[in-house]
Amino acid sequence: MKSISIIGTGNVGYHLAKAFHLSGIKIQEIYGRDISEAEQIASMVGANAIDNLADLKAVDILIIAVSDDAIKTVASSLPEHIKDHTIVAHTSGTKPLKTLKGCNNKAIFYPLQTFSKEVELSYENIPFCLNGKRRIIDALSEISSQISNKTLILSDEKRREVHLSAVILNNFTNHLIYLAKDRLKLYEIDESILDPLLNETVRKQSILTPYDAQTGPARRDDQKTIKKHLNLLDGNRELYEIYMLLSDNITNTYQ
Amino acid sequence: MKSISIIGTGNVGYHLAKAFHLSGIKIQEIYGRDISEAEQIASMVGANAIDNLADLKAVDILIIAVSDDAIKTVASSLPEHIKDHTIVAHTSGTKPLKTLKGCNNKAIFYPLQTFSKEVELSYENIPFCLNGKRRIIDALSEISSQISNKTLILSDEKRREVHLSAVILNNFTNHLIYLAKDRLKLYEIDESILDPLLNETVRKQSILTPYDAQTGPARRDDQKTIKKHLNLLDGNRELYEIYMLLSDNITNTYQ
Repeated sequence: MKSISIIGTGNVGYHLAKAFHLSGIKIQEIYGRDISEAEQIASMVGANAIDNLADLKAVDILIIAVSDDAIKTVASSLPEHIKDHTIVAHTSGTKPLKTLKGCNNKAIFYPLQTFSKEVELSYENIPFCLNGKRRIIDALSEISSQISNKTLILSDEKRREVHLSAVILNNFTNHLIYLAKDRLKLYEIDESILDPLLNETVRKQSILTPYDAQTGPARRDDQKTIKKHLNLLDGNRELYEIYMLLSDNITNTYQ
Repeated sequence: MKSISIIGTGNVGYHLAKAFHLSGIKIQEIYGRDISEAEQIASMVGANAIDNLADLKAVDILIIAVSDDAIKTVASSLPEHIKDHTIVAHTSGTKPLKTLKGCNNKAIFYPLQTFSKEVELSYENIPFCLNGKRRIIDALSEISSQISNKTLILSDEKRREVHLSAVILNNFTNHLIYLAKDRLKLYEIDESILDPLLNETVRKQSILTPYDAQTGPARRDDQKTIKKHLNLLDGNRELYEIYMLLSDNITNTYQ
């Protein structure tokens, strides 16, 4: 059984700690710059909370779940025994393996999901994207496969593309949902009227490709309706531009 | 029990015919310019197929489910007995009531959903948006409430806004899903890797508002990651612009 410690108390650190714990994996230490945040997670999963990297004890695997910009600094500040002997993995979708400079056993442990502390989720379907030397990937697969039924080995280059696609698929669609509902609020229309449509939008993806699932004015190249919608958006420059750009892109896709 | 006929054999006409039929509502006639298309639907729901508007028999309600541009022409070509006595409703999200010029009993019967013939769906949650005179709305509610548990009365102005929001929420998110998966195809990465994220994107909406559900580089104003993604998109001008515009809009929303 591998021993694990986690650095970082944000959305990813929080959910990974919980996922490991629920899978029966022992977590040694949770590090947070803010000790009270570390304590909160540590008490939930039966780990020790620390706020000094020098206090990290020997473990098989150390997960660095901090913001992209902080990974390098954290890696270089690790105690020598960790740098030398522990598998040190970061969870970023974008940063390459080499960001972990100075660590002998570099790895990537990137969970492809949207995490918010307030939202519980089941971990079994999350794709874990790993990178590193063969022996290291084997060790990480051992723990990812205890959490989830989907583990992939991806190069830095491919993982970067997956992360980019995830931003388009999750962040941008979430924002469009926000914009659509915000618009209804303005007109004092109950936003929940859109929920059946939202559910169907996604359910449809399991039946048709997104290419075939498309409907609406832009797909039909119905420029009259598009123009009417743009007129309605006249007072909202940003949404106007988003509408125009996406409609043009849809129309071009089906031409 | 109201008697109904339907004009139009597209996605909306097809699904409304099916929805009426499944709810035990008798459909008299299905009109299509292409008689074979009309016959296909008519045989499914036990109706007569016609390809001449003059053949429309007296019914309580006539549903015009044709493209926006064709509504006016269809309405003016209806037999006089229909214009005078039948409730004539169109299914457009955008076109006003007055498009049905010449009909004495104008109405709107707009189902807020994305319909594709190839995709079966359950009709009970579809919001039906009605408009017209009180007496006419009462008659239409009688049939919409047999299909679905959600009937709303919306002015032309509000329905237009609902339709615009539906385009943003459905067409645009569907297209982003297409773009994200298309990108992965380019890099020979299995597109289904994004499916758990897509499901979670929508599941999250039932727990948090879309405003609170947002994560990712643009929400964190992580300009370094945004710049890296834009570099990756350098060869794809349209996606580059969509990425930039939506990221800016997200960042501004959280500032």
